[in-house]
Amino acid sequence: MTAAMRLSAVAWAAKTRREIRDVGAADGSVLVVPVGSIEQHGHHLPVSTDTLLADAVAHRGAERAADDVPILVTPPVWSGFSPHHLSLGGTISLELDDLLDALADVADTALENGFDGLCFVNGHGGNAAAINNAVSIVGKSHPDVEVAGLTYFQLAEPFVDEIRESETGGMSHGGEFETSLMLHLHPELVRMEDADAEYLDEPYDRGTKDLLVGGPLATYRPFEEYSDTGAIGDPKLANAEKGEKLLDRLTDELADVFRNVSEQAR
Amino acid sequence: MTAAMRLSAVAWAAKTRREIRDVGAADGSVLVVPVGSIEQHGHHLPVSTDTLLADAVAHRGAERAADDVPILVTPPVWSGFSPHHLSLGGTISLELDDLLDALADVADTALENGFDGLCFVNGHGGNAAAINNAVSIVGKSHPDVEVAGLTYFQLAEPFVDEIRESETGGMSHGGEFETSLMLHLHPELVRMEDADAEYLDEPYDRGTKDLLVGGPLATYRPFEEYSDTGAIGDPKLANAEKGEKLLDRLTDELADVFRNVSEQAR
Amino acid sequence: MTAAMRLSAVAWAAKTRREIRDVGAADGSVLVVPVGSIEQHGHHLPVSTDTLLADAVAHRGAERAADDVPILVTPPVWSGFSPHHLSLGGTISLELDDLLDALADVADTALENGFDGLCFVNGHGGNAAAINNAVSIVGKSHPDVEVAGLTYFQLAEPFVDEIRESETGGMSHGGEFETSLMLHLHPELVRMEDADAEYLDEPYDRGTKDLLVGGPLATYRPFEEYSDTGAIGDPKLANAEKGEKLLDRLTDELADVFRNVSEQAR
Amino acid sequence: MTAAMRLSAVAWAAKTRREIRDVGAADGSVLVVPVGSIEQHGHHLPVSTDTLLADAVAHRGAERAADDVPILVTPPVWSGFSPHHLSLGGTISLELDDLLDALADVADTALENGFDGLCFVNGHGGNAAAINNAVSIVGKSHPDVEVAGLTYFQLAEPFVDEIRESETGGMSHGGEFETSLMLHLHPELVRMEDADAEYLDEPYDRGTKDLLVGGPLATYRPFEEYSDTGAIGDPKLANAEKGEKLLDRLTDELADVFRNVSEQAR
Amino acid sequence: MTAAMRLSAVAWAAKTRREIRDVGAADGSVLVVPVGSIEQHGHHLPVSTDTLLADAVAHRGAERAADDVPILVTPPVWSGFSPHHLSLGGTISLELDDLLDALADVADTALENGFDGLCFVNGHGGNAAAINNAVSIVGKSHPDVEVAGLTYFQLAEPFVDEIRESETGGMSHGGEFETSLMLHLHPELVRMEDADAEYLDEPYDRGTKDLLVGGPLATYRPFEEYSDTGAIGDPKLANAEKGEKLLDRLTDELADVFRNVSEQAR
Amino acid sequence: MTAAMRLSAVAWAAKTRREIRDVGAADGSVLVVPVGSIEQHGHHLPVSTDTLLADAVAHRGAERAADDVPILVTPPVWSGFSPHHLSLGGTISLELDDLLDALADVADTALENGFDGLCFVNGHGGNAAAINNAVSIVGKSHPDVEVAGLTYFQLAEPFVDEIRESETGGMSHGGEFETSLMLHLHPELVRMEDADAEYLDEPYDRGTKDLLVGGPLATYRPFEEYSDTGAIGDPKLANAEKGEKLLDRLTDELADVFRNVSEQAR
Repeated sequence: MTAAMRLSAVAWAAKTRREIRDVGAADGSVLVVPVGSIEQHGHHLPVSTDTLLADAVAHRGAERAADDVPILVTPPVWSGFSPHHLSLGGTISLELDDLLDALADVADTALENGFDGLCFVNGHGGNAAAINNAVSIVGKSHPDVEVAGLTYFQLAEPFVDEIRESETGGMSHGGEFETSLMLHLHPELVRMEDADAEYLDEPYDRGTKDLLVGGPLATYRPFEEYSDTGAIGDPKLANAEKGEKLLDRLTDELADVFRNVSEQAR
Repeated sequence: MTAAMRLSAVAWAAKTRREIRDVGAADGSVLVVPVGSIEQHGHHLPVSTDTLLADAVAHRGAERAADDVPILVTPPVWSGFSPHHLSLGGTISLELDDLLDALADVADTALENGFDGLCFVNGHGGNAAAINNAVSIVGKSHPDVEVAGLTYFQLAEPFVDEIRESETGGMSHGGEFETSLMLHLHPELVRMEDADAEYLDEPYDRGTKDLLVGGPLATYRPFEEYSDTGAIGDPKLANAEKGEKLLDRLTDELADVFRNVSEQAR
Repeated sequence: MTAAMRLSAVAWAAKTRREIRDVGAADGSVLVVPVGSIEQHGHHLPVSTDTLLADAVAHRGAERAADDVPILVTPPVWSGFSPHHLSLGGTISLELDDLLDALADVADTALENGFDGLCFVNGHGGNAAAINNAVSIVGKSHPDVEVAGLTYFQLAEPFVDEIRESETGGMSHGGEFETSLMLHLHPELVRMEDADAEYLDEPYDRGTKDLLVGGPLATYRPFEEYSDTGAIGDPKLANAEKGEKLLDRLTDELADVFRNVSEQAR
Repeated sequence: MTAAMRLSAVAWAAKTRREIRDVGAADGSVLVVPVGSIEQHGHHLPVSTDTLLADAVAHRGAERAADDVPILVTPPVWSGFSPHHLSLGGTISLELDDLLDALADVADTALENGFDGLCFVNGHGGNAAAINNAVSIVGKSHPDVEVAGLTYFQLAEPFVDEIRESETGGMSHGGEFETSLMLHLHPELVRMEDADAEYLDEPYDRGTKDLLVGGPLATYRPFEEYSDTGAIGDPKLANAEKGEKLLDRLTDELADVFRNVSEQAR
Repeated sequence: MTAAMRLSAVAWAAKTRREIRDVGAADGSVLVVPVGSIEQHGHHLPVSTDTLLADAVAHRGAERAADDVPILVTPPVWSGFSPHHLSLGGTISLELDDLLDALADVADTALENGFDGLCFVNGHGGNAAAINNAVSIVGKSHPDVEVAGLTYFQLAEPFVDEIRESETGGMSHGGEFETSLMLHLHPELVRMEDADAEYLDEPYDRGTKDLLVGGPLATYRPFEEYSDTGAIGDPKLANAEKGEKLLDRLTDELADVFRNVSEQAR
Repeated sequence: MTAAMRLSAVAWAAKTRREIRDVGAADGSVLVVPVGSIEQHGHHLPVSTDTLLADAVAHRGAERAADDVPILVTPPVWSGFSPHHLSLGGTISLELDDLLDALADVADTALENGFDGLCFVNGHGGNAAAINNAVSIVGKSHPDVEVAGLTYFQLAEPFVDEIRESETGGMSHGGEFETSLMLHLHPELVRMEDADAEYLDEPYDRGTKDLLVGGPLATYRPFEEYSDTGAIGDPKLANAEKGEKLLDRLTDELADVFRNVSEQAR
């Protein structure tokens, strides 16, 4: 039995009120809020994939930065904005305004403990715009707090080509990237026997083609129009070793972001 | 490392979309939604106590009922309604309407998978009224689904006197009851050396005096007016053996509730 | 012709602005807000039963406490939360969030007149959770006001067995209890010739069985699934004498609550 | 003791569910929803003036039309939109969106009983725009129902000069008009010894100058900027005889409106 | 190519931040917010008629007052509340609460630039009540700002009979009045060959009969029940000369209103 | 005098209801909704810059595609989400949820006219996430409509290096890019004498560095922390010729997007 709500040394959930206030009161303290989703990921990955990965990356990044940064990680907000996945089953999704309200409430009340900075760490592409909006909403109402946010897999852009084998489209929803990370972190939850390669036949020249190859055009289509399995990409190229490398590099990147936020927040 | 978002045999989070739909399609299927809070629990318990306990009880109840009932448990909604705890630190709280909206969204989208019944399992007294309201809201919009809800510790009323040693007031927020359960389930998170007995001096004759001794009068007062530590009750009387007994009996009760909901839902 | 919006010595509605401010400014002043509903009560009681009773009890309690407590009673909020009654006709119901907003607005603006305490007096079981939530919402935004709330019939628990003749289930919606009060207060509105005993066949062991016998489990079912007439309980055992006794005892209890709130508010 | 929530032959509140459905099912049936306010009316009138008058006129109009029109009157919505009166005390006001939501909820649920038409009868100038908006909102969502609304005192325009003695400005908030009606209907609630003439010195050429002399320009100013007492107009010219005449003529006008709505609704 | 978002000497849109702040800081400064709609106006007028007219009148009025009043005009809010026009096509309408929120946001943020007064200038009858409500909402939250609002065509009441040829009902939606103004201002957008006279057969004695002949009764009916073409009135009597005269007189009236607001705001 | 609400051959605003329905009914019809902002752009550009540019690009793109695509362009939504600009003056900003509601209302009602596709064309970086969210919200509620959205300047990525002279950071808010476009389209509104180069000293390695050089990290800081003038970039390198080239290339790109949407929508 493993955990998305981790009870580690940087876990808000494992602390008492006094311990949390002590971290918050330290100079340059940073609060990390992982945000994921519960949504279908094809036949080979569990629906909690995005939450498990956002949470894992956030915790490891925070642990790696913890020598330099007073830092805590809240439990992951596991309900995201996934209307396009509903028709395939297994998905739990909030209305967008409810997700934004929840993120703002979490930030507003957690920040009462004195944190100087806040960073949302998102794991679901469909949440990316909501996270950017949440950064503005929270930032506007907390002028003394340094507020930031990101979608973790975009941090892989500088190094992913060293690791990936698939072509563009192979590292999409449930593809080589996410499956590798899951094989490293939660192998017992991956059904490799049900994994199938399915590349996106993106009809728009300027659309998004991969977790790591975006485009200027946003579109809305139910996921079943893209994919039979519910996944897109090439999970057959995934393995745990790649997952370990990806996680290590992502952790470095994210720890660096947390250090940056902390410096700006001091 | 332990988990509030359990990945057990009845865990929605551990399944694929196909597996979830299969359970939902079965006759008399029941969806369980644990609801907790992240709120201060004095100096001896972690802020995630209510979430950890609601989640543990919900999972065990579901596992015990699983032979008779097709059943899945969502990850716990860990953000509750705790405005009265904010001033003591360590607390993350949603606005009430945001909590109700989140619960309705979770139910609305999860129920698309065909479940016949739904049961909220709440672990925080301050959420109890919200849960009752959520039952009405979800029930009204899903006339074909049997919708129910409860606050788990109220299930202990028939048997608690066999186990408790404290007087009325000793099994309140962070007292003998919750501390015993935590000592059984998460001993590594309990700081017994910081536990202190603090009985409530309830000023209202008709007010609530204990997790298990309610009264007709609801009042609002910041928690710091009740308690120095942030806890109320007698955690010093707690031990893991009591926790194990409480958990076993609560599991029986809850499994029975799930069977009832399933029968009504068929 | 009688009145739910009473124009008595403690009635806010009958006062001028100067008189209201004078009461509000007095030490330990208490504002009472009755909350009822307009909902079907079978064939023998008018749809305003819950509003008439909450208003009558609130006024009498306030009058009885008025020697000790500077106190005013607003007109009754007559629209409650009754979705489960709609299908039987005669019911006017607010959405839950609209009811909560209305209660908060009433409290927020009325409290500008200087009251030290506030007590919601509810008359409809379906409002009970909303009232508890309203206590928290109003209490949170008015830290200097003592805020409380109750559902009046729960005050009868200590003495009801001296009066009741029916078994458990006989004092439910439109049963022996409410019909007796109406026969005492508004006999012209009761159609005893249309009254019929109908006991609830509650399918849940842990469900609510009577106005005065609750259980830990909340469920949602349209009222027509419980009852043919729309009432539950034994109105045939009701009489005006019982109603008078109940009202007198309830008035005592409630006056006592108002004195308690006033003391805490000073 | 008199009543704003009247329990007359046309009162929804006094009926059972079956009786209400019978009226609603009749051809050309009309539902009347009085809307008032609780707001300061100077030193000589009670804060419930607008609610008492809207309710009285609505009931009498409905009774006079009842031979021709199947008609019921709900209890008065006594909380209106009065932010400009708050600073003078005695006022209870809803946020505008909460008032609109409450009116829509009342209409939506009451109309489930089969009524063919609906008419809001408003008694507070500050509600007039909200009522017009509510007509549109309710009308849009109930295309098969004839929906109308008015502010009752505007019905006096054709005949008021036969009765009034004051000049323009004398029949404003708490002036000759409203005070006369109150002296006829509720003399025990009028403090004529505290009545004082206070004419509005309206700074805008195109502003509103009287209950019955409007202008194209809407402005917002706290009422204390207009008036020392809280009233505007000439209550000293009021008497019960004028009130009786006004009420009789208003009743005629309103009965005629209800007949019109009923005809259109058939 | 002409413009609803005018870039004139009084146009907010054409200024830089420094220029706007300079106007706002001047004594007696007034902010004008035109509000129109995009809604069908029969076969002879474009759907932007109300926006074009409100914007033109607001700009001209502001320019005429600009010698006496530091004044700026925002771009027109072109989306209004027009549910009754939707079924005929060509209409874009906001939900009422969204329109009110947008107006409040525009006012709240624009007023940060120091303006002493604000005047909404509305061009659509269906917005009139919303504008009155917006005046109250904005006025309440900006106690130091003089807030006003009007529907521009109501300013024509004192002089319209000098110009109009049609009988009552001829100057309604898309009739002699609006068509004349459009022929003067935007002749290239008027299809006079498609203009047809269609007088309203108003079923209510107390209903609204013309842009300039109101009544106390508000009703809701889809526009297609009133009119085949989508217009009401007599556009065949329209000409550009009348339009020029109307515009000139309206401009005088409105400039006078702006001077009044400025005086009150100083 | 020029216009943001253009009245061109593809302008919704210039049409009658019948003409709009005819376009909407054609196969592969596309509705374009420009979205801008009114926000400070330093001392050399008017506050309407983003609205003027989004509107111009959208109209030209639609005109260029009009031979192949039945297409209309609504007036520009000129109020965006710009909280970070408020402190510098000249800015009008909606709350995020109000902007999303307005966009959804515009889409919902406009789409009643039969359009097969919809494309938001945004001109303000601070709106980009809101536009992506609006695409999902509108797409989810209109499953039969092809819904897309983009921020127009991101279309310049493939060709901008052929035109730009500034280094990274020179084409930011009010820099070489936007100033060039304004010099071409609205030279009378540009104060080149007040233009000043101000490059961003971005403190985050992974932050956004230019209109056309994004990064994974979103942050919130009031604009005054970035810039003295209110602009960022190098407007001194701007000229009308560059603006003409940029506009022509952007128009090509956008016309291509509209053709793509139309194909997908057929």
